[in-house]
Amino acid sequence: MQIGMIGLGRMGASMVTRLLGGGHDCVVHDQSPEGVARLVALGGTGSTSLQQFVELLTPPRAVWLMVPAAAVDTLLEQLTPLLQPGDIIIDGGNSHYHDDLRRAAALAALNIAHVDVGTSGGVAGLDRGYCLMIGGGKEPVQHLAPVFATLAPGAGTAAATPGRDACHSSADQGWLHCGPHGAGHFVKMVHNGIEYGVMAAYAEGLNILRHANVGSRDHTVDAETTPLRCPTHYQYEMDLPEIAEVWRRGSVIGSWLLDLTAAALAADPTLGGYEGRISDSGEGRWTVQAAVDEAVPAPVLSAALYARFGSRGDADFANRVQSAMRHEFGGHVEKPLQGPAGGDLK
Amino acid sequence: MQIGMIGLGRMGASMVTRLLGGGHDCVVHDQSPEGVARLVALGGTGSTSLQQFVELLTPPRAVWLMVPAAAVDTLLEQLTPLLQPGDIIIDGGNSHYHDDLRRAAALAALNIAHVDVGTSGGVAGLDRGYCLMIGGGKEPVQHLAPVFATLAPGAGTAAATPGRDACHSSADQGWLHCGPHGAGHFVKMVHNGIEYGVMAAYAEGLNILRHANVGSRDHTVDAETTPLRCPTHYQYEMDLPEIAEVWRRGSVIGSWLLDLTAAALAADPTLGGYEGRISDSGEGRWTVQAAVDEAVPAPVLSAALYARFGSRGDADFANRVQSAMRHEFGGHVEKPLQGPAGGDLK
Amino acid sequence: MQIGMIGLGRMGASMVTRLLGGGHDCVVHDQSPEGVARLVALGGTGSTSLQQFVELLTPPRAVWLMVPAAAVDTLLEQLTPLLQPGDIIIDGGNSHYHDDLRRAAALAALNIAHVDVGTSGGVAGLDRGYCLMIGGGKEPVQHLAPVFATLAPGAGTAAATPGRDACHSSADQGWLHCGPHGAGHFVKMVHNGIEYGVMAAYAEGLNILRHANVGSRDHTVDAETTPLRCPTHYQYEMDLPEIAEVWRRGSVIGSWLLDLTAAALAADPTLGGYEGRISDSGEGRWTVQAAVDEAVPAPVLSAALYARFGSRGDADFANRVQSAMRHEFGGHVEKPLQGPAGGDLK
Amino acid sequence: MQIGMIGLGRMGASMVTRLLGGGHDCVVHDQSPEGVARLVALGGTGSTSLQQFVELLTPPRAVWLMVPAAAVDTLLEQLTPLLQPGDIIIDGGNSHYHDDLRRAAALAALNIAHVDVGTSGGVAGLDRGYCLMIGGGKEPVQHLAPVFATLAPGAGTAAATPGRDACHSSADQGWLHCGPHGAGHFVKMVHNGIEYGVMAAYAEGLNILRHANVGSRDHTVDAETTPLRCPTHYQYEMDLPEIAEVWRRGSVIGSWLLDLTAAALAADPTLGGYEGRISDSGEGRWTVQAAVDEAVPAPVLSAALYARFGSRGDADFANRVQSAMRHEFGGHVEKPLQGPAGGDLK
Repeated sequence: MQIGMIGLGRMGASMVTRLLGGGHDCVVHDQSPEGVARLVALGGTGSTSLQQFVELLTPPRAVWLMVPAAAVDTLLEQLTPLLQPGDIIIDGGNSHYHDDLRRAAALAALNIAHVDVGTSGGVAGLDRGYCLMIGGGKEPVQHLAPVFATLAPGAGTAAATPGRDACHSSADQGWLHCGPHGAGHFVKMVHNGIEYGVMAAYAEGLNILRHANVGSRDHTVDAETTPLRCPTHYQYEMDLPEIAEVWRRGSVIGSWLLDLTAAALAADPTLGGYEGRISDSGEGRWTVQAAVDEAVPAPVLSAALYARFGSRGDADFANRVQSAMRHEFGGHVEKPLQGPAGGDLK
Repeated sequence: MQIGMIGLGRMGASMVTRLLGGGHDCVVHDQSPEGVARLVALGGTGSTSLQQFVELLTPPRAVWLMVPAAAVDTLLEQLTPLLQPGDIIIDGGNSHYHDDLRRAAALAALNIAHVDVGTSGGVAGLDRGYCLMIGGGKEPVQHLAPVFATLAPGAGTAAATPGRDACHSSADQGWLHCGPHGAGHFVKMVHNGIEYGVMAAYAEGLNILRHANVGSRDHTVDAETTPLRCPTHYQYEMDLPEIAEVWRRGSVIGSWLLDLTAAALAADPTLGGYEGRISDSGEGRWTVQAAVDEAVPAPVLSAALYARFGSRGDADFANRVQSAMRHEFGGHVEKPLQGPAGGDLK
Repeated sequence: MQIGMIGLGRMGASMVTRLLGGGHDCVVHDQSPEGVARLVALGGTGSTSLQQFVELLTPPRAVWLMVPAAAVDTLLEQLTPLLQPGDIIIDGGNSHYHDDLRRAAALAALNIAHVDVGTSGGVAGLDRGYCLMIGGGKEPVQHLAPVFATLAPGAGTAAATPGRDACHSSADQGWLHCGPHGAGHFVKMVHNGIEYGVMAAYAEGLNILRHANVGSRDHTVDAETTPLRCPTHYQYEMDLPEIAEVWRRGSVIGSWLLDLTAAALAADPTLGGYEGRISDSGEGRWTVQAAVDEAVPAPVLSAALYARFGSRGDADFANRVQSAMRHEFGGHVEKPLQGPAGGDLK
Repeated sequence: MQIGMIGLGRMGASMVTRLLGGGHDCVVHDQSPEGVARLVALGGTGSTSLQQFVELLTPPRAVWLMVPAAAVDTLLEQLTPLLQPGDIIIDGGNSHYHDDLRRAAALAALNIAHVDVGTSGGVAGLDRGYCLMIGGGKEPVQHLAPVFATLAPGAGTAAATPGRDACHSSADQGWLHCGPHGAGHFVKMVHNGIEYGVMAAYAEGLNILRHANVGSRDHTVDAETTPLRCPTHYQYEMDLPEIAEVWRRGSVIGSWLLDLTAAALAADPTLGGYEGRISDSGEGRWTVQAAVDEAVPAPVLSAALYARFGSRGDADFANRVQSAMRHEFGGHVEKPLQGPAGGDLK
C-alpha cells in the first residue's frame, strides 16, 4: 500500500528501505535532500516540500512521522493544515504518551486519526524487522496492517510460545495493537525502562568480574581506605569477551543485548573507546515517573536510570555534601584522585 | 569417556541423560534407588554404595558431584578416602567459590584434582545443552573436554559473534575454562546475580503495565492516601501475555527469560498460581557481597536481591519502625489491609 | 495581627492555639462545629459559614488554609468570590507546587496574593514550633512576618551555626522566604523526600540488628533456602530500645526522628501494634519525579519510597512474575508462607 | 581509675583529654613522641615503649587501643606477651566484629579479657562526649564503668525518652553494654551504615534543590539529550545555606548531621573545596554484607554505599559497557564531557 514517511534519519531511512523491499509505495520527505535522494535511488518517491509530499499521497493518506520527539509539535503545526478528514498520522518516534493523548484529541476534532507506534529494533531492524507497539483507534490500525506486517519481523523469527493461542493477535508476528491512544508509546516507554534495567544488570555483573583481581593490586594503607579483608579471594583475571561469549549458549541470561555486548567486547575487551557517559532518551525517566504515579516499586529500573545520571556527573554536588559532612564531624579530608579515571582499572 | 555422577536430582539426572546420548559411559549414584534405576534404564551403570560407585570407575576417575551446596562437605568426607591420587572431583553444583578454594587445597594435598563447574540451563538443559563455567587446573579441564563438549549446547546454537577470533577458546561452544580454582563458580555466581537483575527488570516493567489502569479504579479519599493527579493518564487495560509475546520479535529486550515469561503469562495472565515469595539460592547474595568487597557499585543487582527478601516478609520490622515513627510525629495511624493481597489488583 | 484559619484538624487547631498564645487575633472556620468550638474556648473567633468567616476579617485579609491537598481547589472556588483585591491566601498544607503556580496565577488576575507555606513539625509543633518554608511575593510575606515568627520555633531552639551571618534571613528563627510561588512547597516536598530516606535508614539498620540472631534459629535445609554460612556470627539478641537510646547521646546519628524511634521502642520493643503498611502523602513521590526531571540521581530517596509501596503489597505482581520465571526455567516451586508475618521474627 | 591508651591520633588524643578532665590517671603511648608529649603536657603519663607503657600500669591493667583497624593484629602480637592474666584489652577503633570474636577467643585462652567498644562522636566528642557501644564479658565491662561514664556525654545531654524505665541501663548516659564479644562493634557497624543512609538522604535532597533551576538553563537539542518537558517548573534559585538552616528548627528532619551540613554550607554554599570523592571506612560495607547474610532488605543503606563507590569512579567500566551496548544497537555515540565537572552546575 502507499505510505508517506517524514524523517529519514537512521531509523526512518531503514524503515522505508524495508517497506520498499516489501513492495510498498513510499513517498518520502526530509529536511535533507541527500536523505531523500538516497531513498529515491532505492525506489521511493521523493518530495521537496511538505506541500508536495502531501499532494503525492492518495487520500486517505497515511503519514508516518519518524522525527525526534521534540520536533513533532512543530511538524504537526505545518503538516496538519495540509491534510484532510480521513487521513492518518502515525507517530513512530519516542513521543511521551501524554503528548499522544493531547495530539490525538486535537486531530480527532479535524477527523484526522492519530496512531502512536513505539518502534524497537535499532539499526539492526532493517534486517531483523522492528517490534511495533501500537496505540489508537481500531480502524486506522487495521487499515495500516499491511505496513505493520512488513516492518515487523514475522512469526518465524522466534519459536512459538507453548500454550499460546496463535489466533489471539498479531503479537507473534512482532506487532501489536496495545490499546487506545498512547498505549503504544506507553508500552514502548516501559520496554525502554526494562531495557535500561537489563543493560545495567549485565554492566554491573561484568564490572564485578573485571574487578575480581582487586586482591592482586597494591592497596593504600591509610585511615580513609577500607582494607580488603581477604585478598586471596580476589586474584582472578577474568577474560570478559570469552565470558560474555560462553553465556550466549545454554545459559539463563542469553539475550540479544548479551549478543551485542559480546560483539563489543570482542572488538575491544577494555571498551577503551568509551568514556562511560551514558545518555538517556527519556523513556526510562517516564517509566519511573509512571511507576511512582501508580505507586508500584521500581527499584531496579530506577537504579539503572540513576546510574546513567551519575555517569554524567549529576551526583557531584550530592557527593560534595557528603564529603563536607565527613570533614565536619570527623576531620576527614578527601583523597586525591588516583589517575585519570578514578578508581577504575587501567 | 567414562564419568561418574553423584546426585540424580532434576539437574543431575538430565545431565546424565544428555551424556548417555552423547555416547559416554556413565556410572551413577544417588541416595534414592529409584533415581538410579531410572538412569540404568537409559543405559547408565548403577551403584548401591559409594564404595561400589568408586570401584566401577577406572582410574584416573572423574567424579561429578551434582548435589546441594550444603551437602558437598559431608559427601567429600565419605568419598575422598575412597579415591586415589590422579582422580578428579568435579563440583557442578552451586558451591560458594570460597569453598572451592578451601576444598581444592585440601584435595591437592592428596593429589586429587578439584574442578568447579558453574552449570546454567535449568530443566531445559537436557535439550538446549548447559552453559558451563569452569575453574581449576589446566590438565584435568583438558582431560574432561569431551564431557564438557557433550553437555554444552555447541557452536551452532547461536550466531557467531562478529569480529571474534573463533580459535580463542571453547566459549563459542558453550563451555569455558574461566581460570584457577573457584573461577568457574565465581563466574556462575555473577551470572546468577545478573539473572536476578534481568528478571526483576522484566517483573517491574510488567507490574507497571498491569497497574496502567489505576486511573479507572476508585480511590479512597483520606489524608493517608495520595491522590492520583491525572487519572486520565492511567486508563489502560494492558494485555500482558500479548505484550510479552510482541517483545519476543525484533525488540531490544528479547531474551530467553522473556520467552519463559511469555509462556507463563500465556498459561495464566494473572499468574494466580503464585503467591510471589521469591526464593534465592545464594549466588545473588554472594554477588552483592563480592561487589561490596571490590567496592564497585551494584545497585541493580542489589535491588533485585532485596526485592526477593522483601517478597518473603523480611522487611516487616523495618516497615513497622517507619509506621511507628509516623505515628509519633504526625499521629498517623496505619490503614487497614484492603483485601487478601494488599494493594495489588485482583 | 489578625489571621483567619480554615481547617481545624490536627495541624490547623494546634497552629491556632499557638497563634492565640502569641497574642494574635484568630478567626477560625471548619466543617465541624465542634472543632470551631474548641478554639473559641481558647480565645478564637468562631464562624459558621465561609461568608461569615470572611466578614469577620478586616481587609486586607490573611486567610490561612490548613486542609488536605485534594480539598484546596474546591475550597478556593467557594472562598475566592468572597475575597477582595489585596487579600492574601496562604496554603499551609501539602499542595503540589505545580498547583501553587497555577493557583497563584489565577489569583493574581484578581489581585489576590497567594503564599505557599510548607509546614513541618507534626503534632509536636504546638510546643516546639513549626518549621515554615515559604513561597510567594515579597510584600505579602513581609506582611505576614509576625504570624510566621509566632508559629516558628525561634532562634533559641538550636545553637547558632558557626560562621553563619545572623542577619542573612529569618531562617535561624525557623521560617524562611524560599523564593517565588511554589518555592515553599518545593522545599517542603524535598524536606519530606529526605524525611523518607532518613526514616528508612534507621528502619533498615534496626531491622538488621533485630535479625542479628539468625544464626541461633533453626533453618530449613532444602534447595530453595540459602544456608547461612557462619551461624556463629549471628548469635546476638539486641536490645533495640536501649540501642536507640544510647545513640541519642554523642553519636553521629542523633536526631529528632531517632528520639521518636526511641520513644516508640520504649513503649513496645516489638512494635507489635503496627502491621508495617507505611502510608505516603505524596511529597516523597513528587521529590523522586522532580529528581528525574532534573536528571539528578536520588537512589536513597527512591528506595525509601519504594519500600513504602512494597509494604502495601504493590510489588505483588512483580514478585509473581519472578516466581513464575523460576518455575519455568528451574522447575522451582514457591515455598509456603511460614507463619502469619512471613520471614519476620516473632 | 587508671587507664592506658595506645594510639593518640585525632580520636585517641581527644579521649585521653576528656578522661584527664574527668580525673582519671592516663598512661599513654603512640608511635609519635610529639603525640605523647602533647598529652603529658595535659597531665598524662607518657611512655617511650610498649614495655614501659605496660610497666606503668597497675594490674589488672586496662589497655585501650585507639588505632586503625588494620593495625590491631600487629599491635596485639607485640602487646599480648607483655600482659598478665586478669588484664583487659579494649578495642575502641573500628574493627570488624568478626575480628573481635577471633581475638577474644585467643585472649581468653590467656585469661586476658577483650572488650570491643564502638565509639561515635568524631572530633566533637571531646566536648560533646562519645557514644559508646560495648561488647564483651560482664565483669570487665562493669570494671570499666567509670571510664565509660566519663567518656560518654551523660544523661543531661538529651531529654529523657518518655515512657522509658530509667533504671534499665546506662544507655541514657550515652554508653551501653550491648552484648557478648563483637556486639559493640556490630552495633557501631550498623550505626555507621545508618549514618551513610542519613547523609545520602540529605545530600540527594540538597542536590535536587540545587538543580531546581534547570528550566532556566540552556539545553542542547539533539537526539542524545532528553528535553525537559516543563521548564517553567524548574526556575528556582534555592539558597541552600538558608534552607539547611531553617530545617534546623522545628522540622521533622532536624539532626546533628544537619547542623554540620548547615555549617559547611554557611562557610561555602558551593562546597567548592570538595571534589566529591567520598571515602568509606568499611562499616557501611559490612552492614550491607550482614543484611545480605541475614536476608533482610537494605536498599537505602546499599544505595548510600554505592553512591560512595560511584563517586570514586568505580562504576566506570559498567558505564562503558552500557555506552557500548547503545552504540551496538542504536549507533549512539557518547556525548563529549561538558566542562570539568560533567553535568553539575557551576
